[in-house]
Amino acid sequence: MKVVSHWTDIEASPVDMEGARDALKRLVLGPADGTPLMALRVFTLAPGGYTPYHSHPYEHMNVVLEGRGALRVADSEQPVALTPGAMALVPPDEMHQFRNTGDSDFSIVCLVPNDYA
Amino acid sequence: MKVVSHWTDIEASPVDMEGARDALKRLVLGPADGTPLMALRVFTLAPGGYTPYHSHPYEHMNVVLEGRGALRVADSEQPVALTPGAMALVPPDEMHQFRNTGDSDFSIVCLVPNDYA
Repeated sequence: MKVVSHWTDIEASPVDMEGARDALKRLVLGPADGTPLMALRVFTLAPGGYTPYHSHPYEHMNVVLEGRGALRVADSEQPVALTPGAMALVPPDEMHQFRNTGDSDFSIVCLVPNDYA
Repeated sequence: MKVVSHWTDIEASPVDMEGARDALKRLVLGPADGTPLMALRVFTLAPGGYTPYHSHPYEHMNVVLEGRGALRVADSEQPVALTPGAMALVPPDEMHQFRNTGDSDFSIVCLVPNDYA
């Protein structure tokens, strides 16, 4: 059993990936805590921030915690607006990017399989 | 890709398990949506409501969305208070029970492996 009183209690580190801007990552529950299948991270994008527009061979499961953002998917489609309470599945191998479209922090839970925590 | 604008858009059904009271379940993202490993459900406990005090051979990963509650674990330990932003891992085979300890709905994300959705 592990309980984190609030996800902001976990230390944040900058997302050091090409194509990311003003993004922080927190590993809230992961293999070191004994997660059997998936790890739970929280990403926080400052106003104007974004994650890389990319794809990878594993899924994301997302829960929006605070702020306003958008999920960009295939170039042919409009980004999807995200506000707190929204939840998303990004399947393996689909292009995607999260952006903060508001004027305060945009934070989302992002679960991935343990091997990609 | 599947995006749910807000988890309350998903139809709720009563939790019909012995030992549960005033509990609703929403399957927000599951195998029918193509989740590779885990399914994302939301449980809502009305004031006074609770889930069964039980264990099972799979984990829960939890995110508190609204309200005030408690996570009861082994009988020898004090329940852990939960408020929005709290996150928890309940490992396989550990006794646990969620209770609403507030005066408004208590809602939590509860991820489980697909087979137990």
